[in-house]
Amino acid sequence: MNSSMVRVIIGHIMKIEGLLLLLPCLVAIIYRENQGIYYLAVAIASFILGTLLTLIKAEDKSLYLKEGCVATGLSWIVLGIIGALPFTLAGEIPSYTDALFETISGFTTTGSSILTDIEALSHTALFWRSFTHWVGGMGVLVFLLSIVSLSGGSTINLMKAESPGPSVSKIVPKIKSSARMLYYIYAALTVMEMIFLLIGGCPVFDAVTTAFATAGTGGFGIKGDSIASYSPYIQWVVTIFMILFGVNFNAYYLIIMKKLKDAINMEEVRWYLGVILGSIIIIFLNIRNIYDSAGEAVRTAAFQVASIITTTGFATADFDTWNTTCKVVIVTLMFVGACAGSTGGGMKVSRFVIVSKTIGKEIRGYLYPKSVKKILFEGKAADHEMIRSVNVYFMTYIMLFVMSLFLISFEGEDFTTTFTAVATCFNNIGPGLNKLGPTCNFGYLSNFTKYVLIFDMLAGRLELFPLIILFHPDLWRELFRKKRRDYIKKKENNL
Amino acid sequence: MNSSMVRVIIGHIMKIEGLLLLLPCLVAIIYRENQGIYYLAVAIASFILGTLLTLIKAEDKSLYLKEGCVATGLSWIVLGIIGALPFTLAGEIPSYTDALFETISGFTTTGSSILTDIEALSHTALFWRSFTHWVGGMGVLVFLLSIVSLSGGSTINLMKAESPGPSVSKIVPKIKSSARMLYYIYAALTVMEMIFLLIGGCPVFDAVTTAFATAGTGGFGIKGDSIASYSPYIQWVVTIFMILFGVNFNAYYLIIMKKLKDAINMEEVRWYLGVILGSIIIIFLNIRNIYDSAGEAVRTAAFQVASIITTTGFATADFDTWNTTCKVVIVTLMFVGACAGSTGGGMKVSRFVIVSKTIGKEIRGYLYPKSVKKILFEGKAADHEMIRSVNVYFMTYIMLFVMSLFLISFEGEDFTTTFTAVATCFNNIGPGLNKLGPTCNFGYLSNFTKYVLIFDMLAGRLELFPLIILFHPDLWRELFRKKRRDYIKKKENNL
Repeated sequence: MNSSMVRVIIGHIMKIEGLLLLLPCLVAIIYRENQGIYYLAVAIASFILGTLLTLIKAEDKSLYLKEGCVATGLSWIVLGIIGALPFTLAGEIPSYTDALFETISGFTTTGSSILTDIEALSHTALFWRSFTHWVGGMGVLVFLLSIVSLSGGSTINLMKAESPGPSVSKIVPKIKSSARMLYYIYAALTVMEMIFLLIGGCPVFDAVTTAFATAGTGGFGIKGDSIASYSPYIQWVVTIFMILFGVNFNAYYLIIMKKLKDAINMEEVRWYLGVILGSIIIIFLNIRNIYDSAGEAVRTAAFQVASIITTTGFATADFDTWNTTCKVVIVTLMFVGACAGSTGGGMKVSRFVIVSKTIGKEIRGYLYPKSVKKILFEGKAADHEMIRSVNVYFMTYIMLFVMSLFLISFEGEDFTTTFTAVATCFNNIGPGLNKLGPTCNFGYLSNFTKYVLIFDMLAGRLELFPLIILFHPDLWRELFRKKRRDYIKKKENNL
Repeated sequence: MNSSMVRVIIGHIMKIEGLLLLLPCLVAIIYRENQGIYYLAVAIASFILGTLLTLIKAEDKSLYLKEGCVATGLSWIVLGIIGALPFTLAGEIPSYTDALFETISGFTTTGSSILTDIEALSHTALFWRSFTHWVGGMGVLVFLLSIVSLSGGSTINLMKAESPGPSVSKIVPKIKSSARMLYYIYAALTVMEMIFLLIGGCPVFDAVTTAFATAGTGGFGIKGDSIASYSPYIQWVVTIFMILFGVNFNAYYLIIMKKLKDAINMEEVRWYLGVILGSIIIIFLNIRNIYDSAGEAVRTAAFQVASIITTTGFATADFDTWNTTCKVVIVTLMFVGACAGSTGGGMKVSRFVIVSKTIGKEIRGYLYPKSVKKILFEGKAADHEMIRSVNVYFMTYIMLFVMSLFLISFEGEDFTTTFTAVATCFNNIGPGLNKLGPTCNFGYLSNFTKYVLIFDMLAGRLELFPLIILFHPDLWRELFRKKRRDYIKKKENNL
């Protein structure tokens, strides 16, 4: 493995995180909060360490899929480890495990929180919490690629490992321009949401943090009751932007290129919007009687559906009190997730579309044994490799899910809590059901359970394989063997 | 579609059911129970109707996969419809929906019951209930194939539609001999269990019905507390035979052929036994403190593990009161199921082995991009078609599962009850968790829910596709169109 290239990438990531940590320092200055000093200290340390790591350039600049996965997996872990430090140093989250859980939950845009009293946090901490969503949403490596020219063409493997969905499509031929374009669209949409929120009378701080959390489909709120206490207008703005950030960003690029028709014709987006509409109707019919007016019921249904399918995890209502039909819809949406190429998590709509078509093809095979039809997706024939990788993804997903379920069962919670704990973290959503419902938090869980969930959040965000490979013994055996070989070589040269 | 061939097969099945219904009549005579008269009446009616259906031979004897699926699906529905009649006619299960649920639960070897007081049933009804397990376990079409020579070679499609597992292997080249061999082994093992039970002092009636329910991996007991009140010896006998009936029957054939080594080397069987052993150990460690002695804890753990993985569904303990770790293991085993080519349900161990290997191959692909390794299963390279069909099966399974979950959620039960209701019926097990735990019954559910579960039981037993195809509009459109075409032809001829 080309480990020096991995080192350089992690170095770059640490430098970026150092710079990113300066933003909460700015917030600390504005609100005159002492906590800022810790953010500054960590920022400087991170930047220096990162610079040291990138001092020696990598001789071999090749970056294969393996290196891409390892670099991505490690980068995200490093991001979490450093990002959690200020919380504990400032004493706002005394337990480092809790701080790590909160930070990873932030970067992976999960939004599950261990905090019992969110409103007691400083503005600095609240800002950093929400900002991790924004960074993690589009991905920090995509950001890296948009600013640094790493090497030839193989950096696509970094994007492959970090971008959500069954296949990575570069919007434009050059990776750097693709990554930049994604961040432009991302930033523009975020600013648009902020403006709409400000128009509705939302305080500036609230508008900024809420927009960050919506954009990354994260879900950290800055109030104890998430978004419930905001006005109906603000709730609708958040609902619409949650849905917008769950759309495949290719659609926006097509719109910018004035190919509106192509954007509207995107199969995945159509399914995504169809599922949202259907779910809103079902839930509306089931909760109609609980609410005073039909308008309120529609708004609540739409908000929760958008929040869960985009895996944001904001709440305006405690859906844990709704009936089982609503819960089944919500749990199903948890798995479906948003579009590929969006900031949302979950399994992604496109994978379900491809799977549905595969099943349809199988059934047709029984009815018309002689017909040989290809599966069409987004107007093109889905190639064998894509279908295979979608299948393998599903299987791996299920296996990891069951293993996590088993490990978390030691916690001794009831079946529903255990099941939805894994579902919500694995799909990067936020709240679960029962003891982990929208009004509850993850703080009371044991450290062991928290580490399992941290793994799940990372695995979910990076679409399983980068993280599995990181924990594969063969990888470490290879590294160790190489080190030994180098050592022996050195010794021989000395003799 | 060759519908006359389907008609003939269903006719045969009705004749067979007519004959099978004579057995409970015999029981009625022995125990001098009046209910026998209803069984006799239905037997005669079924036989006559079946004879009428088979009077006109099919001109075209071809039987493709489509006809195989349709014939199998319809046969099983007909089996249930007729088999449920005596229960209602004799007044022992007044509601016909309930009787249908109980009978389909019997034939599909699910073992979920709507009865609140099992011990109040007549011996005749108890016998018929347990006997449906035995018939359904190995399959009624396999039985048909073992006695009737239907046509050329295409009857493999009937076996394909009815036999559990990802691929059908004929034990011997001729279908008729294969089917016969399977029933010989099946009957021999059943008789062996009866003998072992009788040796342990089990009453004859109990031994016969328990052996039927074990052999079919069904799980209908004749006592209110299932197997709990029997002696430890009897519990161990049942445990061991449950495990034996969950083994791929090819292993027994190999043993008969004195290829003991080949039988021991069967990969699926090894995994199956490994999973059983592992699960027993985990559950034992978790329930050790609840029981007076380690022996009792081992016995209880082994019984429940064997009962769930083989999808029998007998109980000696209320696992609903165990901790969440045990529940996660039990729910996982519900899905794993027994070996392919056994009488057990679930997804089958072989499918999981193939899936695990597919995932392993994917991960290796990341680590060693240049290695091209084939997946080996049972010593042979698993062909692409098999892997594909396993994948499609999993996907279809999940889709049907979620749809059922949604439909059953209208019942308004809690999430765990809803989830395990579908899991237990789909995998042909019997008991679920919470309100459908081992000490509860399905009687209180609405008729709508019962019909959904009936569909699930059939879909689970027939491995999805035969039943999906039966409900596919294209099939009925085709039939209707053909009828119209024939009608127009006739009219034209008359002119």
